[in-house]
Amino acid sequence: MTAPYTLILLRHGQSEWNKSNQFTGWVDVRLTDQGKAEAQRGGELIKESGLTPDILHTSLLSRAIQTANIALDAADRLWIPVKRSWRLNERHYGALQGKDKAQTLEEFGEDQFMLWRRSFDVPPPDIADDDPYTQLHDPRYAGIDGDVPKTESLKIVIDRLLPYWEDEIVPDLKAGKTVIVAAHGNSLRALVKHLDGISDDDIAELNIPTGIPLVYRLGEDLKPLGPGEYLDPEAAAAGAAAVASQGKK
Amino acid sequence: MTAPYTLILLRHGQSEWNKSNQFTGWVDVRLTDQGKAEAQRGGELIKESGLTPDILHTSLLSRAIQTANIALDAADRLWIPVKRSWRLNERHYGALQGKDKAQTLEEFGEDQFMLWRRSFDVPPPDIADDDPYTQLHDPRYAGIDGDVPKTESLKIVIDRLLPYWEDEIVPDLKAGKTVIVAAHGNSLRALVKHLDGISDDDIAELNIPTGIPLVYRLGEDLKPLGPGEYLDPEAAAAGAAAVASQGKK
Repeated sequence: MTAPYTLILLRHGQSEWNKSNQFTGWVDVRLTDQGKAEAQRGGELIKESGLTPDILHTSLLSRAIQTANIALDAADRLWIPVKRSWRLNERHYGALQGKDKAQTLEEFGEDQFMLWRRSFDVPPPDIADDDPYTQLHDPRYAGIDGDVPKTESLKIVIDRLLPYWEDEIVPDLKAGKTVIVAAHGNSLRALVKHLDGISDDDIAELNIPTGIPLVYRLGEDLKPLGPGEYLDPEAAAAGAAAVASQGKK
Repeated sequence: MTAPYTLILLRHGQSEWNKSNQFTGWVDVRLTDQGKAEAQRGGELIKESGLTPDILHTSLLSRAIQTANIALDAADRLWIPVKRSWRLNERHYGALQGKDKAQTLEEFGEDQFMLWRRSFDVPPPDIADDDPYTQLHDPRYAGIDGDVPKTESLKIVIDRLLPYWEDEIVPDLKAGKTVIVAAHGNSLRALVKHLDGISDDDIAELNIPTGIPLVYRLGEDLKPLGPGEYLDPEAAAAGAAAVASQGKK
């Protein structure tokens, strides 16, 4: 097959902890009813666009998988093959996992808060091995290569995501398949940073809204032929602004 | 890994056409709300049993995929790997697809009706290439080896299912994985016939209820170490009786 290749990125809809404003990371919370409605709308947008995803890649987290399942059902593509990997997981939020965002902001101040949320290479403190929100003993990570993370920066996310991009997603694209990736705010920011060549500084300003498919057309060299396009640009702009203000009062 | 190996069979919950009493076959109807509730209950039964499915095999039909997705979510195993194949599809019902069961019974009489429904090797007439319910042009079957079926007997289902059993499911079992297969009345009857060594005549009497996990423990030779056990035996008996009476007035 020849380019352009088509890649659809889909961030999961609102989760229980998006709603309660807690740091989530690798904690396996589910979608809210609003999140399910967002996923449904995302699938309808895909169907209306005429795009036909041929293969799905998801993280190992239920909220991304739920989003994909609902969206593909709405797009009448529930039957396509699926691959899953921890490498598409959300950033591990370390000791912040489970903490209230507004309370964390108050406790540590805006500078520290924004450093944890948006700095490129400063991870939060490690999560303790006996923390109720550690994934140290979660069976889904029993088979991963390497240790289960205890915290991650965006830089670490990029480092563990790019091998999966190269080894698993790119071959599907080169085979001519329309690929849909259902994942998370930070794993998708990592991928967009790579695709669009965004600098370590500028990536702090990029916010990806939930539930709205983001479509890239890629050339032979896997570089975007133009900017990624949201299937509902107005809703995407509003959604990105909402993400940027999280934790604010 | 050594035996016993664990295999969980799950027939999809009530579909729109189970409810409206139409022959379904390869027509891609969705679950009803009752069907979704059955799938939820099936997943809860798996969770309560302590079984932990490691890998999912489904057909390419949405009602089986929906059932698996709902059940695995309830069992907190949404993240396990998935394989899909047309070889796990329901029996293709040929020209009967879309027809009302009671009306077909009245039109053709009980002998012909039961022959189509329960004979081992007599398929219904071929579906026409221009029938609204043919799958001739369905993109999900573009890549299958061989032609898209126009009708199938149970014997034909067995012939196309067993290679998948041997090549895809058995290796997962031998690797020590607890395998869950989410499929259909007739593809699961075909598999149970093979596992339990049921004769071509006796298989007519076997009915598999919807939404209730059926668990087999298999030895090194992949033969059952005992009868398959439903996780809710009382509901299973009632469900099997309901299936047997379909089309009756």
